[in-house]
Amino acid sequence: MSNPTAGILVIGDEILSGRTKDKNIGWLADELTALGISLRQARIIADDRQTIIDNVRALSEAYDYVFTSGGIGPTHDDITTESIACAFGVEVIRHPEAEARLLKHYQGTDIEFNEARQKMADIPEGATLIDNPVSAAPGYQIENVFVMAGVPSILQSMFHGFSAQLTGGVQPRRITVQCAIGEGTIADIMQAISDQFPEVSVGSYPWFKPGQFGTAVVLTSTDSERAGQAAEALMTQVREQGFGADIDDNAK
Amino acid sequence: MSNPTAGILVIGDEILSGRTKDKNIGWLADELTALGISLRQARIIADDRQTIIDNVRALSEAYDYVFTSGGIGPTHDDITTESIACAFGVEVIRHPEAEARLLKHYQGTDIEFNEARQKMADIPEGATLIDNPVSAAPGYQIENVFVMAGVPSILQSMFHGFSAQLTGGVQPRRITVQCAIGEGTIADIMQAISDQFPEVSVGSYPWFKPGQFGTAVVLTSTDSERAGQAAEALMTQVREQGFGADIDDNAK
Repeated sequence: MSNPTAGILVIGDEILSGRTKDKNIGWLADELTALGISLRQARIIADDRQTIIDNVRALSEAYDYVFTSGGIGPTHDDITTESIACAFGVEVIRHPEAEARLLKHYQGTDIEFNEARQKMADIPEGATLIDNPVSAAPGYQIENVFVMAGVPSILQSMFHGFSAQLTGGVQPRRITVQCAIGEGTIADIMQAISDQFPEVSVGSYPWFKPGQFGTAVVLTSTDSERAGQAAEALMTQVREQGFGADIDDNAK
Repeated sequence: MSNPTAGILVIGDEILSGRTKDKNIGWLADELTALGISLRQARIIADDRQTIIDNVRALSEAYDYVFTSGGIGPTHDDITTESIACAFGVEVIRHPEAEARLLKHYQGTDIEFNEARQKMADIPEGATLIDNPVSAAPGYQIENVFVMAGVPSILQSMFHGFSAQLTGGVQPRRITVQCAIGEGTIADIMQAISDQFPEVSVGSYPWFKPGQFGTAVVLTSTDSERAGQAAEALMTQVREQGFGADIDDNAK
């Protein structure tokens, strides 16, 4: 059985304008890989109702899981929730448990639980809450879509609250073979390894520093044994050509 | 006339696995905003032929410009060029000028200009070269798509080689009003400003540090005068409620 798949939807004009640099895609990519969930695509889109609707539907149909970040705060530009409700053809309701959590969070502070903040208790009908240990305002899950805040610390705490319940897969074994050889020189060897081990993904990433260069060849497979064999075969061939090669193996 | 639009396509399994963190989207977002080109969407996709074809076509039809990064190196997993040629229904050809540049680049080194490296002179028929001052292997433009390397330093040098020829637009004026007030408290004021100045985009970004919190309200518009008026109106209203507000204006 192949691993479950996922898509990420980052919602926010501030990312597209360059004002804010996204940190959520890279963080989620690491977490999903560790869970054996295969991230297939990530999109950064604008705070635009129809754009959100279209993209949520597209990714929700294409992948087992969708993770969104951004647009669930108290202000007028936070339109993620109304758009996602529309994407699934349901109403937005005031969720009593979410309201109770927010009320408790603001009690004893001098912050008023005003109408804007009450809006953070509004979620699509039928959705289930995702805990927010940082600032109370919950995220939620609707169908296969997990809706989270854009602030990285909040997104991370939300994700860790439900990630144990995701259906994971086999964490791929990822072996990096560091070769003291240019990418163009090693291309033939890589092609041969890729042909010989079709179940192993073979990627190459050249690097440069002053006076040195090399290529990191990354062998990835859910078939741990074959990944190991491919790495051995690669190392042997690189060394036979008179170049150095070192290994970094996430299974060891 | 509204500003030209753009999409970004980051092509690479290594980004989706989390192994490499993308730095190109944020960098390009800043550059495009400065040119008055409106970045509407960015996608990170896998090194998969059909996926590349579908996404290049979709973004090329939707936006005035498309910028891609990744997958144009010498190895078997570099399939961007063949996929993009297929997306536009043209053949891949060996480009004489590209070949000459690579030959010159490797002359006098002990690096062989072998078959794998020669592959970097292959581009879609009818495409025009994009200079690569860092490592010679060119990018190229085909229709409204600009195909660049994934290594940030190379992508940046490529982009600066042609960016002066892009049709830009009006650089939006972006005024950040830093308010010593919670996002939920300021929501009503922001809504009113947004209603009063429909040509100004009003975004809010809460921030927290130990013992302090506040909200950055970002007012963006290609109508510079109205952006300034909206910022003044916002500052006045925040101060009337007894909170501090400071301004940071990219037009000043």
